Amino acid sequence: MNKKYQVVGIGNALVDVLASADEDFLADNGIGKGIMQLIDMERAADLYDRIGPAQEVSGGSAANTIAGIAHLGGRTAYVGKVKDDQLGRIFAHDLRAQGASYETSFADGEVPGETGRCIVLVTPDGERSMNTYLGVTEFLTPDDIIPEQMAEAEWIYLEGYRFDGPESHEAFAKAIRATRSAGGRVSITLSDPFCVERHRVAFREMIHSDVDLLFCNRAEMLSMYETNDFDAALKQAASEVAIVACTDSEHGAHILAGERRWHVPAIPVDLVDATGAGDLFSAAFLWGLTHGYSLEDCGRMGCIAASEVISHIGARPETSLRKLFERHHVL
Amino acid sequence: MNKKYQVVGIGNALVDVLASADEDFLADNGIGKGIMQLIDMERAADLYDRIGPAQEVSGGSAANTIAGIAHLGGRTAYVGKVKDDQLGRIFAHDLRAQGASYETSFADGEVPGETGRCIVLVTPDGERSMNTYLGVTEFLTPDDIIPEQMAEAEWIYLEGYRFDGPESHEAFAKAIRATRSAGGRVSITLSDPFCVERHRVAFREMIHSDVDLLFCNRAEMLSMYETNDFDAALKQAASEVAIVACTDSEHGAHILAGERRWHVPAIPVDLVDATGAGDLFSAAFLWGLTHGYSLEDCGRMGCIAASEVISHIGARPETSLRKLFERHHVL
Repeated sequence: MNKKYQVVGIGNALVDVLASADEDFLADNGIGKGIMQLIDMERAADLYDRIGPAQEVSGGSAANTIAGIAHLGGRTAYVGKVKDDQLGRIFAHDLRAQGASYETSFADGEVPGETGRCIVLVTPDGERSMNTYLGVTEFLTPDDIIPEQMAEAEWIYLEGYRFDGPESHEAFAKAIRATRSAGGRVSITLSDPFCVERHRVAFREMIHSDVDLLFCNRAEMLSMYETNDFDAALKQAASEVAIVACTDSEHGAHILAGERRWHVPAIPVDLVDATGAGDLFSAAFLWGLTHGYSLEDCGRMGCIAASEVISHIGARPETSLRKLFERHHVL
Repeated sequence: MNKKYQVVGIGNALVDVLASADEDFLADNGIGKGIMQLIDMERAADLYDRIGPAQEVSGGSAANTIAGIAHLGGRTAYVGKVKDDQLGRIFAHDLRAQGASYETSFADGEVPGETGRCIVLVTPDGERSMNTYLGVTEFLTPDDIIPEQMAEAEWIYLEGYRFDGPESHEAFAKAIRATRSAGGRVSITLSDPFCVERHRVAFREMIHSDVDLLFCNRAEMLSMYETNDFDAALKQAASEVAIVACTDSEHGAHILAGERRWHVPAIPVDLVDATGAGDLFSAAFLWGLTHGYSLEDCGRMGCIAASEVISHIGARPETSLRKLFERHHVL
């Protein structure tokens, strides 16, 4: 079987607005450090007025993952909603220019708001604090899911953030049905501990019944199972999902499959901007998985890709990940 | 006398669209390496479809200079035209967030086109090739020049590129009159050898009669005086203009004032993206000049600032220029 797409991602289509800020700025503006907060248009405009000079780079968590897989040469598609405005055209351009298929129709002109954006404030320690104005990307509905496209996916990759919207739950359910019935598999990322907090029940139901591969980090894992016992949470997840890939910042990542378990180390690097670390871990892992590599090597590739993306501003790779894999002897 | 602004810049208000490209891409798409070409909207859309993933950063030659002076703590304002669209709001935000005053009214909704942009293709050698869709920034008219603002400027800084538009000639003339009659001085950058080719007569007339400080590089200087004798051209310029600051790539810069002449060396640096080198040279030079430094030190600051901006992607400073000046013992 050679499906048209190795991975189809579904998520929030956002343009990142990247600016530097210090800890005082975060405190003065009520911004939670290291997490993602949803903000409305008014707050977005107000915050934008306060931040320093910025640069705009296409982002969106699952979109970064899909861009990363495409960068590696994988066959990918993306589903997410933008408007036919300048930022929306930038988002579409960058994804297609990276080699991904992106055919989601523009949000209707009558849908309120503009293309979504994420104001990412990077503190001197390289940590990023995200303030997301969803805009039209909130309005992803089941109509945006083309069953024929899902049937052409070896894997779909669902972004937990998109659980913030009831119609998107239905969209995910439709995507899962279409993928499964054509023999494809389902992966999901939990996105953020507060996102897990908001959607724990829905996440757990979906993971239990539909997910073949779970991506998360330590904080999300602990939030999911409402425990402080990381090891117990990992085992619990592994009892429900075929493959668990849980990142753990500078401690690398834990990969579990049934009774088997691997730990892969992080690659030491000068942290410039943590944006996209998890997204690129997923990208490299899924690329490895769909190209016949061992789960352990998939995890190693994930850590290498994450190290690349945190060594510069922006959440998409700027140097050849393949060359980095070769340098680390996983290719 | 303490004027409100040390420098007021007037030029093309553009957002840069920065992407990597190889030499073959330039050749296949008829792009002249290292220069600026004007393109129309159709060509801009077509070229954008062909380039790889990009990032958007506020640019515009004189705007980069004004942003650089503001970054150093100088009192600045900028005049240039954008539309009230997403890219226009990004441009305005970044300039104001850097501390510059920017009050030019948005182009009327009936003016055709969008906010201008410059597709900057950076080759592996760090050289940049610019493809500019002027959009509404072409429609800068004398109405956009507020005489009271010019009267508040110690220096105005005119961008040669803006000579591509008859109404802008009048706008420049109006700005010069208002500045001069209030005791301010006039600087200009020649921008590009092909720009000099297009406007040699107008440039020479203005330089001869109105310019106190001329910024250019070697190629522009040679084009201006239609000669291959660099030294003769420098002397000719110095006979017409009080101060000449002529950059010469890795050979540094030549500063001339009457019979006096200095050569300042370039700062060796790993060239990543040459975009903005000349703009930041001007920024540091003008900052030094309006803060009581010697012409030689102004030139040294110019070379240091240029070295910062070519060591990363984008044409505005990302690290503290003041700290770099201190490290090189010019502060």
